[in-house]
Amino acid sequence: VSWLERELREQPEALARLLERQAPRAPELAEPFHRDDVHYILIVSRGSSSNAARYAQYVLGRAHRVPVAFATPSLYTLYGQPPLLEGALVIGISQSGASPDVNAVVAEGRRQGRPTLALTNDPSSPIARAADAVLPLEAGEERAVAATKTFLNSLGAVALLFAATTSDEVAFRELEQMPARVEEQLALSLAGKHALDAFGDIEGATVVARGVNYGTAFEVALKIRELSGRLVEAYSAADLLHGPIAAIGHGWPVIVLAPSGPALSGVEELLEPLRERGARVVVVSDDARLLADAETPLPLVIGVPEWLSPLTTVIPGQVAALRLAELRGLDLDRPEGLQKVTLTR
Amino acid sequence: VSWLERELREQPEALARLLERQAPRAPELAEPFHRDDVHYILIVSRGSSSNAARYAQYVLGRAHRVPVAFATPSLYTLYGQPPLLEGALVIGISQSGASPDVNAVVAEGRRQGRPTLALTNDPSSPIARAADAVLPLEAGEERAVAATKTFLNSLGAVALLFAATTSDEVAFRELEQMPARVEEQLALSLAGKHALDAFGDIEGATVVARGVNYGTAFEVALKIRELSGRLVEAYSAADLLHGPIAAIGHGWPVIVLAPSGPALSGVEELLEPLRERGARVVVVSDDARLLADAETPLPLVIGVPEWLSPLTTVIPGQVAALRLAELRGLDLDRPEGLQKVTLTR
Repeated sequence: VSWLERELREQPEALARLLERQAPRAPELAEPFHRDDVHYILIVSRGSSSNAARYAQYVLGRAHRVPVAFATPSLYTLYGQPPLLEGALVIGISQSGASPDVNAVVAEGRRQGRPTLALTNDPSSPIARAADAVLPLEAGEERAVAATKTFLNSLGAVALLFAATTSDEVAFRELEQMPARVEEQLALSLAGKHALDAFGDIEGATVVARGVNYGTAFEVALKIRELSGRLVEAYSAADLLHGPIAAIGHGWPVIVLAPSGPALSGVEELLEPLRERGARVVVVSDDARLLADAETPLPLVIGVPEWLSPLTTVIPGQVAALRLAELRGLDLDRPEGLQKVTLTR
Repeated sequence: VSWLERELREQPEALARLLERQAPRAPELAEPFHRDDVHYILIVSRGSSSNAARYAQYVLGRAHRVPVAFATPSLYTLYGQPPLLEGALVIGISQSGASPDVNAVVAEGRRQGRPTLALTNDPSSPIARAADAVLPLEAGEERAVAATKTFLNSLGAVALLFAATTSDEVAFRELEQMPARVEEQLALSLAGKHALDAFGDIEGATVVARGVNYGTAFEVALKIRELSGRLVEAYSAADLLHGPIAAIGHGWPVIVLAPSGPALSGVEELLEPLRERGARVVVVSDDARLLADAETPLPLVIGVPEWLSPLTTVIPGQVAALRLAELRGLDLDRPEGLQKVTLTR
């Protein structure tokens, strides 16, 4: 068995460990969010961590009701013109904690006297030393190049920050149930892993979502892309309609992430134009009607609160990425030309 | 002649008109940027306007030294949970001024008492009525579905805000020279339009850049995608290295935007890995050495200040999009399945 599959299956356990060890630190973690001088959150990240950052943009935006912005690292590194960060809480998300450009933004935040928080799987990494506070991802060592459990635990860490900053007991209880829900989703998705066998020869695909699962779409696209080397891209359903849908032709696979919730109507308005163009639509949903109408349905376990739905919605995408790479006979642990840790300036 | 080609050629004139009519308003336009309670800029946009917003993220970030964030419209519309905008200056960018989700963010900014500014080509549009102040794009009527002159003038408007907020006389003089530089670039790129004739049968392409031209990469990708229906995507050179490069295989076209300046080294580090993977590299640059080494060079006029380089760098991309669609015999003015104005919630 590959490290990738092992780590994929370890996700419920890794998430449970994160919650067990870090949930008790909630009041301490929430403290910088409540400072009077924090008007917005600035996140810096690369790769899979940027997809967890997109989740944070929705869930922290709603919880703390402050906008979440993404940093432009090159202003700090290549241009040497870092912005003034008055009003910012700076959060760095990095599995390895080693990328110089990500760390430069966190270090600049601290230099300017802003509160800084690092989410990293390595509490002895440079980013952990650069930040005031660290939220360890507690995923354990990850050996496959493609991130699975570190990504899931990044989502879990962001969800924990949501619960911590709102001090919402219901949110904590909902979050505590997620390791079990992720376990059920893994069983469901692995049992149905042959659903995509007809897609073994695809050239690429487009993954779409809206709202809280916008980042999930990017992560599913990245995972399939890394593991099978196919050209997979992600879009907000709304952005796709503003032009890029032009490239979706007859037979092109489109994976629509459509869990129940407020964003569902924003994704549904895309289904008709996609069918008119003859796209092969794969629907990931817990909605019985949508699944029944889909050419290729990938079911989600039901009853997961919408704000936590990325933690289960990503699973069928990870399993699809694994299966598509298997069908091509590729090395799951070392995708061609990729390294586990990428150092960019 | 198509409307697209006519409007592409009208760009120097449209830009000159914007500067002539709106540069005198610089002090008034700069006023909200200097308010003591403005700590960051929040931009809302869709489609090509989002690519102008990416330019604003770098150029206004450097000028005014405050971070530029992008709004998440679904929090305002689908979720009905708009963030608290204390500290924000809200800017909406929309050619038509008609998209409900974009306008919802501007209206919410105004409702919360924040300063709001609309960049639109239609000063009588809903976004213009929603905002406190309007910077008209002055591009004249645009009939082709794919934006050219409204995009260039959106860049010009952002550059004007840079000059206005810094009250930098050198910046104003550099900007005033841009209609002439865009004219030279158009002549150069149109004269060399057959350079891409060997690319007539491509399935897709990847466009990369960093820093101030990050948004230009997205616009070039969108333009080729809209006009020729090919699967064209854009990446920051740094993000591509963090995983997505896995899908760049032998013979895949990669268009590298590499004008001189601080971001050049960040783009150059990508060339070696791309060549190792056997990509067909197209280099858009004013750097003689890079052009000489490129399999397919697309030259830029020399001497354009780096902060204004997107206004010329986009031109070879627009011409490539036009040419690739011509080679396929497609309708340049009405790409299949697209409308000029897209209304998303």
